[in-house]
Amino acid sequence: MAENGAKRIRLGMVGGGTGAFIGYVHRVASRIDGDYELVAGALSSRPDVAKESGRNIGLAEDRIYTSYEDMARAEAARPDGIEAVSIVTPNHMHYSPAKAFLEAGIHVICDKPITSTLEDARKLAAIKPANGAKFLLTHNYTGYPLIRQARELVASGALGKIRVIQAEYPQDWLTEATTDDNKQASWRTDPARSGAGGAIGDIGTHAYNLARFVTGLKTQAVSADLTSFVPGRQLDDNVHILLRFEGGAKGMLWASQVAVGNENGLQLRVYGDKGGLEWRQDNPNYMWFTEFGKPRQLLTRGGAISGNAVSTMNVRIPSGHPEGYLEAFATLYSQFAAIIRGDGAAYEGLLPTMADGVEGMQFIVASVQSSQNDGKWTRLSDV
Amino acid sequence: MAENGAKRIRLGMVGGGTGAFIGYVHRVASRIDGDYELVAGALSSRPDVAKESGRNIGLAEDRIYTSYEDMARAEAARPDGIEAVSIVTPNHMHYSPAKAFLEAGIHVICDKPITSTLEDARKLAAIKPANGAKFLLTHNYTGYPLIRQARELVASGALGKIRVIQAEYPQDWLTEATTDDNKQASWRTDPARSGAGGAIGDIGTHAYNLARFVTGLKTQAVSADLTSFVPGRQLDDNVHILLRFEGGAKGMLWASQVAVGNENGLQLRVYGDKGGLEWRQDNPNYMWFTEFGKPRQLLTRGGAISGNAVSTMNVRIPSGHPEGYLEAFATLYSQFAAIIRGDGAAYEGLLPTMADGVEGMQFIVASVQSSQNDGKWTRLSDV
Amino acid sequence: MAENGAKRIRLGMVGGGTGAFIGYVHRVASRIDGDYELVAGALSSRPDVAKESGRNIGLAEDRIYTSYEDMARAEAARPDGIEAVSIVTPNHMHYSPAKAFLEAGIHVICDKPITSTLEDARKLAAIKPANGAKFLLTHNYTGYPLIRQARELVASGALGKIRVIQAEYPQDWLTEATTDDNKQASWRTDPARSGAGGAIGDIGTHAYNLARFVTGLKTQAVSADLTSFVPGRQLDDNVHILLRFEGGAKGMLWASQVAVGNENGLQLRVYGDKGGLEWRQDNPNYMWFTEFGKPRQLLTRGGAISGNAVSTMNVRIPSGHPEGYLEAFATLYSQFAAIIRGDGAAYEGLLPTMADGVEGMQFIVASVQSSQNDGKWTRLSDV
Amino acid sequence: MAENGAKRIRLGMVGGGTGAFIGYVHRVASRIDGDYELVAGALSSRPDVAKESGRNIGLAEDRIYTSYEDMARAEAARPDGIEAVSIVTPNHMHYSPAKAFLEAGIHVICDKPITSTLEDARKLAAIKPANGAKFLLTHNYTGYPLIRQARELVASGALGKIRVIQAEYPQDWLTEATTDDNKQASWRTDPARSGAGGAIGDIGTHAYNLARFVTGLKTQAVSADLTSFVPGRQLDDNVHILLRFEGGAKGMLWASQVAVGNENGLQLRVYGDKGGLEWRQDNPNYMWFTEFGKPRQLLTRGGAISGNAVSTMNVRIPSGHPEGYLEAFATLYSQFAAIIRGDGAAYEGLLPTMADGVEGMQFIVASVQSSQNDGKWTRLSDV
Repeated sequence: MAENGAKRIRLGMVGGGTGAFIGYVHRVASRIDGDYELVAGALSSRPDVAKESGRNIGLAEDRIYTSYEDMARAEAARPDGIEAVSIVTPNHMHYSPAKAFLEAGIHVICDKPITSTLEDARKLAAIKPANGAKFLLTHNYTGYPLIRQARELVASGALGKIRVIQAEYPQDWLTEATTDDNKQASWRTDPARSGAGGAIGDIGTHAYNLARFVTGLKTQAVSADLTSFVPGRQLDDNVHILLRFEGGAKGMLWASQVAVGNENGLQLRVYGDKGGLEWRQDNPNYMWFTEFGKPRQLLTRGGAISGNAVSTMNVRIPSGHPEGYLEAFATLYSQFAAIIRGDGAAYEGLLPTMADGVEGMQFIVASVQSSQNDGKWTRLSDV
Repeated sequence: MAENGAKRIRLGMVGGGTGAFIGYVHRVASRIDGDYELVAGALSSRPDVAKESGRNIGLAEDRIYTSYEDMARAEAARPDGIEAVSIVTPNHMHYSPAKAFLEAGIHVICDKPITSTLEDARKLAAIKPANGAKFLLTHNYTGYPLIRQARELVASGALGKIRVIQAEYPQDWLTEATTDDNKQASWRTDPARSGAGGAIGDIGTHAYNLARFVTGLKTQAVSADLTSFVPGRQLDDNVHILLRFEGGAKGMLWASQVAVGNENGLQLRVYGDKGGLEWRQDNPNYMWFTEFGKPRQLLTRGGAISGNAVSTMNVRIPSGHPEGYLEAFATLYSQFAAIIRGDGAAYEGLLPTMADGVEGMQFIVASVQSSQNDGKWTRLSDV
Repeated sequence: MAENGAKRIRLGMVGGGTGAFIGYVHRVASRIDGDYELVAGALSSRPDVAKESGRNIGLAEDRIYTSYEDMARAEAARPDGIEAVSIVTPNHMHYSPAKAFLEAGIHVICDKPITSTLEDARKLAAIKPANGAKFLLTHNYTGYPLIRQARELVASGALGKIRVIQAEYPQDWLTEATTDDNKQASWRTDPARSGAGGAIGDIGTHAYNLARFVTGLKTQAVSADLTSFVPGRQLDDNVHILLRFEGGAKGMLWASQVAVGNENGLQLRVYGDKGGLEWRQDNPNYMWFTEFGKPRQLLTRGGAISGNAVSTMNVRIPSGHPEGYLEAFATLYSQFAAIIRGDGAAYEGLLPTMADGVEGMQFIVASVQSSQNDGKWTRLSDV
Repeated sequence: MAENGAKRIRLGMVGGGTGAFIGYVHRVASRIDGDYELVAGALSSRPDVAKESGRNIGLAEDRIYTSYEDMARAEAARPDGIEAVSIVTPNHMHYSPAKAFLEAGIHVICDKPITSTLEDARKLAAIKPANGAKFLLTHNYTGYPLIRQARELVASGALGKIRVIQAEYPQDWLTEATTDDNKQASWRTDPARSGAGGAIGDIGTHAYNLARFVTGLKTQAVSADLTSFVPGRQLDDNVHILLRFEGGAKGMLWASQVAVGNENGLQLRVYGDKGGLEWRQDNPNYMWFTEFGKPRQLLTRGGAISGNAVSTMNVRIPSGHPEGYLEAFATLYSQFAAIIRGDGAAYEGLLPTMADGVEGMQFIVASVQSSQNDGKWTRLSDV
């Protein structure tokens, strides 16, 4: 039962079997605020793994499925069937289950990027969900309280007119060639499962989404230089992109899986004609805010001069006690729960949507095309 | 259901009604790893608040109690009664419920400090729990993965013989006089509810416990200077203590509620004749480790050169994705769950016990006595 | 007299009158190690300012000049005439005095960028200096000890094959339109005095030079997007550039004068297939060095695992006692003094040369052209 | 010649021969602002070293002395004799030369601590200098611009009434036993040359002086625990001290030479009932300033909201370009030069004096006595 007295939402999961990273994260996120109860799952495409994984997380035998199609059909038919489903498979396996559950009238929580191709994303966006089923894309970094506050500060005019946006997401875990038994690495470097983008899809989209979420500026065009540094790798592992936004703002985006010394160095810096903001994901409870001509201020999550209700309602504990990645993720889950229950109006504009998913794919495709055309400025609206 | 397939432990709560800080934290901590299901509560000493608070968190009507005595009796009698209880009341209300539940054969998870007086702590320690009921004291900072790793590094000899320990816990939230309607502040500054220590009990014990947990060194004596800076305040809001450890190590402990600019600046620094460690709670996913004559290394939670199974089993997500206060707290809950289920042998020496609680009270009493005696070195064993 | 017993070199200065920033810096730099004695100057193109400024810094009346031509002629004729001259005028006034003094057989220390046009730079490079007069370009950031050490680490192979170079230099001092009485700002935003580049010439060249100095990689081509954000400004105040290096490394360079909250945030990050380096100018006594798969190490200036003689000979005081901008600048001065005296062989490859100056101009011109051609990749060798 | 047109002051030096650390530092400090010209020296008590050292730094043969007595006598008699002398010998060799030069009417710049015994300090303070000769004690950290600004902020009331002062100075260079050929280490660990204090005299006095300089609060009493951790060491290498100030403020001081991982971690934190300040020497161009209830602000040297003329007149270069230890040291030299010339009224209260030197010795003696008396609170006025 949720902390606010609401009944828990019955949740299913597609993907996320034993050994999976992001499926586990979704499960924790669903538990933190007490808004969901996981009751069904098609946790693997391999029946034996699906079975064992389901038992490990305590699912009843009759709600462990070996295919998402069966699960969508059976759960939709049960009076106590799942109300929502989390899709945590590799990218190329997002589209079909998302379609199946939406058409079955079951709310969908889908990991990013939304699909492995722009075509799939557009097809998904064109679906008519049954019973008003909703869709959440887990661009989880938007759930960090200070990212919400950054968005409020920009919207309030505290930064003035935005001029420069620097987004980056360096990692180093793919510095060397990967072996097949590295489950996380193998599908992320395989075009058949990831789509046309490697680092750009896996982490570049996060940095891109964050820049868009905080500034609200629409992207006009990109000029990209994508590289595969590791011999034999088929997808990009380093991404250099210049961005132009409507209204004249300019940006840079760097994403890398080969930047030795960086674990998850997602960083966003935004500068306007009145102020600037700087935030890093690996120490997310702090954000620099500078008004031109005054000293830098270190804002803290939930600390002095926090924003209004929308930004602060997801601050769980007092400032100085760090919240992290899982809490930010959980905020998406619990605010989506409010929307499902019909009392989430305050979050409608905050949670990442199908449209964000399509735009993310446009960003990937436009960047890949630009890179193939020697950096030609490419409009997102042209892909 | 827990991620490992185990059945959830039925949990009750004493204290933690609407508006309480630490009760909420315990509830989140109990949910994160899926090891507990909260099913009963005596959430307030005021019946109406107890009722409303119970409904808010979804308890069944017949398991919302208005006294802990009733709850202990009734739950012990039910076949589906609670197996464990969390006690999250002000300090002076720890002893009686802890005694009641232990004697009812129900495992107790108790917030710190263990009681408001050393006498109560000793009486509690002398109780014979029914049915082998276990006791956990939530010195939650010991749940941080890097604190576990620090303990391992010290135990491994990587720091050599320990010489100097600097522990501190500065806050600023009590910089000004508090008003009665500040629920968190009012009981913490009231000797009747907090006991003889103010800052020393609320946060000094955390810093002390952390130093003891990481180094394993036994304390010999303290020399203290406790101060109440805010006019009219009855308890200390600033604590300056010198420490002597067995074997010759020396330490300093500073705790303050009036250090403007500090939120929860808990910090531990340990230096031996071969190496040094430095860790801060407000950025807990990083720890400095230096071998003498070599450059400082920045260790990360779960990153390169992590420790063995005991320290890493509570790392939930990859390094670079921050975990925080709630996860550290949850680690105590889930590892205590393992102990309750009988498969927690690996954690026996790690989780804070009744004995740690008694020692914490000795530390408070010895420090208060030393301060009253103009800083006379006072042995913990003499109080 | 220098600390090594050598006689001080007689120095003159062109530019650097009262109120000038960089002239003062050069004078301090010339004094720190005791290798120079300033004895003559043409400190301003305005005779009264030249006179007063000369008196202020204690020049003898007969060695205060009102034109650099007079000074070159007169000093070259004196038996005790200056042996070297510092040229610290705005960019467009570098070429002529540099030419005059070199042709008069007087060593030249010239502020960067070398000239205001590439044509001038090439003409200067083609000059035959009399008496073997030498030339130093004060890309002062190359004088930081850890930058020298970074260069050594790269050269030693500690980073492996270089893949990614991220250079940036954000400032915020030109966030708003400047007024004519801001001496520093007015010439830097005036094409007639600065040349075709604004931020790119003033600070972009520093970031570029640093990347080149540390990695030793030759630049192949640039793709640039230069912007003037402040209404009415004629030159770029924000620079976004993608870089390609020979051998396949890729880079990004960001320079900005409108990034609110940044004073002089020059930063260099270099990643190879074995290791990574990160350094910031505003805290220059520290540098991150990571070997893949190991924890980050924080190297300190002159601290553990410092490099060989070449990098450490300019460490003046023990690690932990910060050296700064002026010391880095002074290192160029004192090592150039050694070269002048004929005992500076160790520094020959370290000090920025005429060729570096020409390349800096190529970088500016290629970037401006690329930006005018909508980001077309432009080879430095084609301009 | 100084930047302000004043003639250079003729300077001599006692101590500081080849291989000495602090003598070199004094020489650089004397050069940076161009206020002094070193023309004479008795650089070593060993004649051959004195000779060679003098030649190395370019002294004329007839002004290289082999005893300070000769130097005082001869220089006082010359029309072009030194006007000031720097004393940079080990502690026990401060008193006699200081006395000799003051009585010869020559200004004295003396390294700290002022002497090796309190008795000597008092005798020195009782001397009547000839010709109004002045005395400067080089507590060099007081020359950092942000330390000046901290002092101004406290004096302005921005912090309110001061409550808590935390000063510390950890190093690690004496973690292991030293050998005789380590010149820096050997005299610092020798009571005959250092006096009764080891770490407390070498670095504890710096931390103490800084706390006193910034807050202006008079010390009432100390309670100390001094330790020699390294076997065979005669003097303390770790210092734990509690402080009480007049007016009720409390403090802690930690100094250590065995804190592995610390180079020169001098840190001062001051908290009042309205605000707080935090500063570290190893990154001295930044200072945290927090007004209660507002976000932390990061002040920069010479940046936004800098203080008045007194604090800013020693900012040499724009904020964001770091100044360091040598510049802070140079500020004492150049402001003492102004006092010598008679135009330094603004600095009279800022530069460390004979009285500060005597108080520093009282602090050492009181702390040593307190430690010998098992931490008994000991008044500085009682020693």
